[in-house]
Amino acid sequence: MVYQKALDDLSKGLPILVYDSEKREGETDLVIASQYATPDVIRRMRKDAGGYICTTVRESDAREIGLPLMQEFLARAIPEQRELFDQTDLRYDKSSPFSFTINHRDTFTGISDNDRSLTVIEFAKFISNVMPTPQKRKEFQRTFRTPGHVNLIIARDGYFAVRKGHTELTTFLAEEAGLIPSTTVVEMLSDTHSSMTRIEAQEYAESQSLTFIEGKEIIEQWANGQGNGVRCVRSAPSRSPVLLP
Amino acid sequence: MVYQKALDDLSKGLPILVYDSEKREGETDLVIASQYATPDVIRRMRKDAGGYICTTVRESDAREIGLPLMQEFLARAIPEQRELFDQTDLRYDKSSPFSFTINHRDTFTGISDNDRSLTVIEFAKFISNVMPTPQKRKEFQRTFRTPGHVNLIIARDGYFAVRKGHTELTTFLAEEAGLIPSTTVVEMLSDTHSSMTRIEAQEYAESQSLTFIEGKEIIEQWANGQGNGVRCVRSAPSRSPVLLP
Repeated sequence: MVYQKALDDLSKGLPILVYDSEKREGETDLVIASQYATPDVIRRMRKDAGGYICTTVRESDAREIGLPLMQEFLARAIPEQRELFDQTDLRYDKSSPFSFTINHRDTFTGISDNDRSLTVIEFAKFISNVMPTPQKRKEFQRTFRTPGHVNLIIARDGYFAVRKGHTELTTFLAEEAGLIPSTTVVEMLSDTHSSMTRIEAQEYAESQSLTFIEGKEIIEQWANGQGNGVRCVRSAPSRSPVLLP
Repeated sequence: MVYQKALDDLSKGLPILVYDSEKREGETDLVIASQYATPDVIRRMRKDAGGYICTTVRESDAREIGLPLMQEFLARAIPEQRELFDQTDLRYDKSSPFSFTINHRDTFTGISDNDRSLTVIEFAKFISNVMPTPQKRKEFQRTFRTPGHVNLIIARDGYFAVRKGHTELTTFLAEEAGLIPSTTVVEMLSDTHSSMTRIEAQEYAESQSLTFIEGKEIIEQWANGQGNGVRCVRSAPSRSPVLLP
């Protein structure tokens, strides 16, 4: 079954391909569990996929380390330019998941495969560390700096009750696989100047022997509560903002 | 002369390669005048270079449309997390040039070559439009949204008196060439997991018949006042912040 295969592949540190839905972006992301984002994987992401390399974090983890959604952030910094971050004309969803960008402080420029891999793997390790919130927030600032070259994107608490983007789809998979709940994702782009069609992405998956899974297959598992439940969040969507005072 | 060749190439819509300095990042960027950033160019940037595709804007133009540096922005939004955006441990410069990310409102997801090209070219056209500041700021918010998939980076007023990054080096070239003063740049990455060395980048330039120029050759021209002076800013560095109330 493709769902179980996707979990197994992620657990083995293999990349998988996740297509969201023809009703949303209609895009396929190349996905790795963040804890396995080696320099080889980052190179593959930029060469074979070509989109924006982003690292997911659950809303609850983001809140713990003080990471806001960019929109909340903008509302606080430049309220007089509110129209700039108005997203009501987004054609595929109600909001984007971007937080800010980070580099690990031990990177050099932050952009090489080695540097981005270091940032992503250390970020995954970091969120999995259990420590008191004030200490964690302090350590976060000492370990990472912003702006950087890895885009953090926030998976909404409540998952598909709230949003059905690659951010939620892939973070849910990592969580179900019992991995650190963070994935690193990148859109598959085509030589035609568009994003890859589902057919193109499936052909790539076959040629590389990678698992290809659709959003609806993931959401079905979530709805049926068939997952193994490791650290699984199926609660109602949070109403509190991510941005912390 | 390589300096004049670089200006001519940019004017013709050809990409050039700019190496900063062994004293800074030691990185080479693939560079195009933003007004010529066609989908073909964006594809070449992600496939041949692989770094972070960023679009430059002069500090004076950024100020006019209300674009802050990310650090100023963060200081306003999350002053209690000031350590997060502390850049005193940056090894190659005193600060990074990032502002925020944008998408043109007519893009779909924003990441395809077509979408990024649209955002970049329309941004270049936008900053070249002369209109009263309040109107320009309003139009900017109606035409673009943040967050997006094109990283805006701000070239400091006063250029090399203040900062000697690719942002300043390439924006100065566009200005000297009499083009819209915005370039789109991306770091050349190597299959070795590091950024390309100068030698690797020079080999690429030769194989593709592209002009390769070093930062010191550009800074020399600026220091000697040899440029053609089109819209040229050689004034003392501005002390006012970019962030506007």
